[in-house]
Amino acid sequence: MSEDPVTAVILAAGEGRRLQPLTNRRPKPMIPVANRPLLEHVVEAVAAAGIERIVLVVGYRQERIRNHFGDGDDWGVTIEYVEQSTQLGTGHAVLHAESAIDDDFLVLNGDRIVDPSLVSRVCDRVRDGAAPAMAVTTVEHPREYGVVTSDGDGRVTHIEEKPEGPVDTNRINAGVYGFSPGIFAAIRETHVTGELTLTATLNEIATDRGVTAVSYDGRWLDVSNLWDLLTVNAGLIDEGDGSQRGDPPLGDSVSTAADVALAGNIRVGANVTIGGSTAIGSNATIEANAVVENAVIFPDAVIGAGAVVRDAVVAGNARIGPNTTIAGGAAEMIVGDAVHRDIELSGVVGDNASIGGGATLTEGAVVGDGVQADAGVVIDGRITADAVVRRG
Amino acid sequence: MSEDPVTAVILAAGEGRRLQPLTNRRPKPMIPVANRPLLEHVVEAVAAAGIERIVLVVGYRQERIRNHFGDGDDWGVTIEYVEQSTQLGTGHAVLHAESAIDDDFLVLNGDRIVDPSLVSRVCDRVRDGAAPAMAVTTVEHPREYGVVTSDGDGRVTHIEEKPEGPVDTNRINAGVYGFSPGIFAAIRETHVTGELTLTATLNEIATDRGVTAVSYDGRWLDVSNLWDLLTVNAGLIDEGDGSQRGDPPLGDSVSTAADVALAGNIRVGANVTIGGSTAIGSNATIEANAVVENAVIFPDAVIGAGAVVRDAVVAGNARIGPNTTIAGGAAEMIVGDAVHRDIELSGVVGDNASIGGGATLTEGAVVGDGVQADAGVVIDGRITADAVVRRG
Amino acid sequence: MSEDPVTAVILAAGEGRRLQPLTNRRPKPMIPVANRPLLEHVVEAVAAAGIERIVLVVGYRQERIRNHFGDGDDWGVTIEYVEQSTQLGTGHAVLHAESAIDDDFLVLNGDRIVDPSLVSRVCDRVRDGAAPAMAVTTVEHPREYGVVTSDGDGRVTHIEEKPEGPVDTNRINAGVYGFSPGIFAAIRETHVTGELTLTATLNEIATDRGVTAVSYDGRWLDVSNLWDLLTVNAGLIDEGDGSQRGDPPLGDSVSTAADVALAGNIRVGANVTIGGSTAIGSNATIEANAVVENAVIFPDAVIGAGAVVRDAVVAGNARIGPNTTIAGGAAEMIVGDAVHRDIELSGVVGDNASIGGGATLTEGAVVGDGVQADAGVVIDGRITADAVVRRG
Repeated sequence: MSEDPVTAVILAAGEGRRLQPLTNRRPKPMIPVANRPLLEHVVEAVAAAGIERIVLVVGYRQERIRNHFGDGDDWGVTIEYVEQSTQLGTGHAVLHAESAIDDDFLVLNGDRIVDPSLVSRVCDRVRDGAAPAMAVTTVEHPREYGVVTSDGDGRVTHIEEKPEGPVDTNRINAGVYGFSPGIFAAIRETHVTGELTLTATLNEIATDRGVTAVSYDGRWLDVSNLWDLLTVNAGLIDEGDGSQRGDPPLGDSVSTAADVALAGNIRVGANVTIGGSTAIGSNATIEANAVVENAVIFPDAVIGAGAVVRDAVVAGNARIGPNTTIAGGAAEMIVGDAVHRDIELSGVVGDNASIGGGATLTEGAVVGDGVQADAGVVIDGRITADAVVRRG
Repeated sequence: MSEDPVTAVILAAGEGRRLQPLTNRRPKPMIPVANRPLLEHVVEAVAAAGIERIVLVVGYRQERIRNHFGDGDDWGVTIEYVEQSTQLGTGHAVLHAESAIDDDFLVLNGDRIVDPSLVSRVCDRVRDGAAPAMAVTTVEHPREYGVVTSDGDGRVTHIEEKPEGPVDTNRINAGVYGFSPGIFAAIRETHVTGELTLTATLNEIATDRGVTAVSYDGRWLDVSNLWDLLTVNAGLIDEGDGSQRGDPPLGDSVSTAADVALAGNIRVGANVTIGGSTAIGSNATIEANAVVENAVIFPDAVIGAGAVVRDAVVAGNARIGPNTTIAGGAAEMIVGDAVHRDIELSGVVGDNASIGGGATLTEGAVVGDGVQADAGVVIDGRITADAVVRRG
Repeated sequence: MSEDPVTAVILAAGEGRRLQPLTNRRPKPMIPVANRPLLEHVVEAVAAAGIERIVLVVGYRQERIRNHFGDGDDWGVTIEYVEQSTQLGTGHAVLHAESAIDDDFLVLNGDRIVDPSLVSRVCDRVRDGAAPAMAVTTVEHPREYGVVTSDGDGRVTHIEEKPEGPVDTNRINAGVYGFSPGIFAAIRETHVTGELTLTATLNEIATDRGVTAVSYDGRWLDVSNLWDLLTVNAGLIDEGDGSQRGDPPLGDSVSTAADVALAGNIRVGANVTIGGSTAIGSNATIEANAVVENAVIFPDAVIGAGAVVRDAVVAGNARIGPNTTIAGGAAEMIVGDAVHRDIELSGVVGDNASIGGGATLTEGAVVGDGVQADAGVVIDGRITADAVVRRG
């Protein structure tokens, strides 16, 4: 059992294609929810658990991460960076951290938010010599994750990634691991075709001698698809301690719900209504008489006068014209080959997109970054980046 | 002269085709104005006049009436029901009440609102042996009603239904009658082709021995066409004693005019403006920054954020999308073969219809019940029930 | 040197075609900014400079000027009118005033706003025998005006109207002149082809013996194009002493910026937001939840509920429908043969035009007077007077 400080390796190199267009200009871990990047929520949980050293595995659009976190000083931790230039799996990512590790360590996903208590518990188990350990949580739809089979002694015996058939458990891999340095050799020796995943390595170890399961039923927030942003944002705001809420100057007769996250330097015009579960990022502008509710508004975005933006994500520096409506009902969205129905997502507007006044986004519309849409248009479905949408 | 209690027979069996689509799911007497069905205003006037027993002649969609009024206890009267399964005229309707009547009685239309004082006065005349008696009032456009000719002794000598030529009086049949039981035989013996109307019977009696005219210049509110709902609603609210107005929770900075009727359990978002002559029914929702004025909003309707609904009727459980506009100017409406011009009615939205966000209803639009209209559409004219209105 | 009172001749006969459609029903000097006609601002400056007698040279739509100013009593001056029935140049206009002048006099343009101090200074120079004198100011884009060359002794040596090539000065003719009666003969003797301009006469005098330059760097507000109305309006409001602001009744939760000019008898509904640099003329109506900002709203105009009107001019008695949007971005506008880019003018709506609800004007749209546009339309470019704009 080691008493030395434990290092946390956080995997933040991936692109997150399912979250396009939001990931065209930033890696998925840098998507803001409740006004802070997903990764910042992870870093904070790690820091709150008493971890003092973090190794960030970065790759895609890594400059966004390096610029934001620097040396970690603002979070009371030391952050070092290792670069994974091509993303060939979580195991492959962990291998890139090898040179920075000489003792037991933790691994976390940079886009899944957990409580500090889970980090502490996995940490303690590793210090007690129980590595490899992995957190196991329960979810409603386990088949979208790594479904975990365990024996009666709290040991994982198998992990099956996104099983196609029915499953008899809703316990899944929570994406928080505790390893000894021996894991690096195990990863290298894993027999795989295709991506070198941690799951493959852990399955070999589980078959051989077992993997310690750390059961967890606390906060576990995962952003797999665009619409998850709204629920994760709402969840984080809901449990917020108020620190997320700045004290921006508000116009006359502005109404704000209790459960909002407002950056301190936003501008909010008169007669604006900001409903619940809304985050409004730094330097954003909400013009007079607009209505924003259950929405994630990124920094520098402008919501025009009289616009209604609900159940929506508006990315950085995007402009929504006056009296424009983003407020559909239940949407049907296609991601890759899969059709998702009854999605509560009115629309997503990419970075730097500009939508004219009096326009309407129909339910589930996704507007690419840099799109220029005329006043008065009705936007359906997915608009590719930098397209120009004309009337008629 | 009888001192026995007098029974009121209220005719409420008709469908009211001219008020489609509002009468597709309820009989005309159950259309709400100032948050109560037309018939309830009639029942209240009758009860306030001291009548203790009401016979409701019901037919079309009668379950709506029976469920609402039950045994009349809530109104301090005894209500009995007789069924007129096919509607063959007002005389025919009165005949259905024969088995429930054994003394002098009153007859009223279930969709015309009068003062209790008129009910009392007709009642008194009947007790004085003056049956048959009928109330006579004056209107601006008498040719739409039964025009009354009378002699110098206050006796009706002739009633002409909707005369085509010019008339030299604006006195009309107000639709409140006092009869002795002998009227039943007179109705049965009336010579008619087509509908068996009370007017036909009364004309035969008037020629023979005359009908007592009870002159009346009080409140007389008739809903013949959709647009009459707005004026009748406004009139009832205007004279309201405040009892029509609940005390619903209102959002921040909500502005409500003095002359509104709000059910106590509605939801009203922030920065909403509720203008005058507006009734908002039970469990309706007015979302943030919407404007509603001179409108009849039925129970369970939802008016979306930023929508403007003016000079309009929105029926039960209908949904008006955010930033949608129902606020035209003077309309031209076609009802049957007649063209009505300069009608102040922006639009009517039927029960359970759903109109997407950013849509526009042009002046005089009538949206059938159950219609589904896309976001961003412009709706003109009449949309048949359950139609799907797509863009483009 | 004369001590006699000096008369000011103000040129107000022109039509102002570049400001169509606003000049279809009024001469350019009668276009209101900050709730008063341009010409009234000029008359006030002249009166404030101590001038007691004004001769207005009128022509196009002169009844609008005569009705507004009458005998000048309301401004503390005596106003006389001379008619220039055809407009053949500024010199030609001045000649029409000859019969009313028998001493030194000033000439001003009726649509350029200057400080009283400039009027006083030109007046003083003329009394000192320095006629002819002309005010010279500096502007950012001198090539749009009469560019002035002067010698070291403060004398104008040449004026070049709208030079095509580059210029080495930004000093221009400010349009305020001081003359002795001898100017009339000089004008008549000027050798010109085409219009008889004051510039041509002054150039001949300048070559001969020089013209006194009166340098000026105070307020100089010129309305050459439609978009200048917004900047001149904003400038006048910004420097206003509060006298421009009436105290109209405002609805609940109305927000008004500090720098607005509101006529005292306007109607403003609840939850309206009136942003900065906005003038709202007599008897105009701003309905509930509308947003008006950086706009010139002429008398009797109606801005519908929920409409957004920004960077726009709405002329007399025009009606903007509910939820209609006039709030584009930078526009490209064509005036005559010239294309102007990056113009901050969302739209201009002519007198008596009526635009339905839920409509959108795109950036730079110009709607002619008397146009009738349907609800839900999108309006681009220029719509000719009295056109009917239908959907689809």
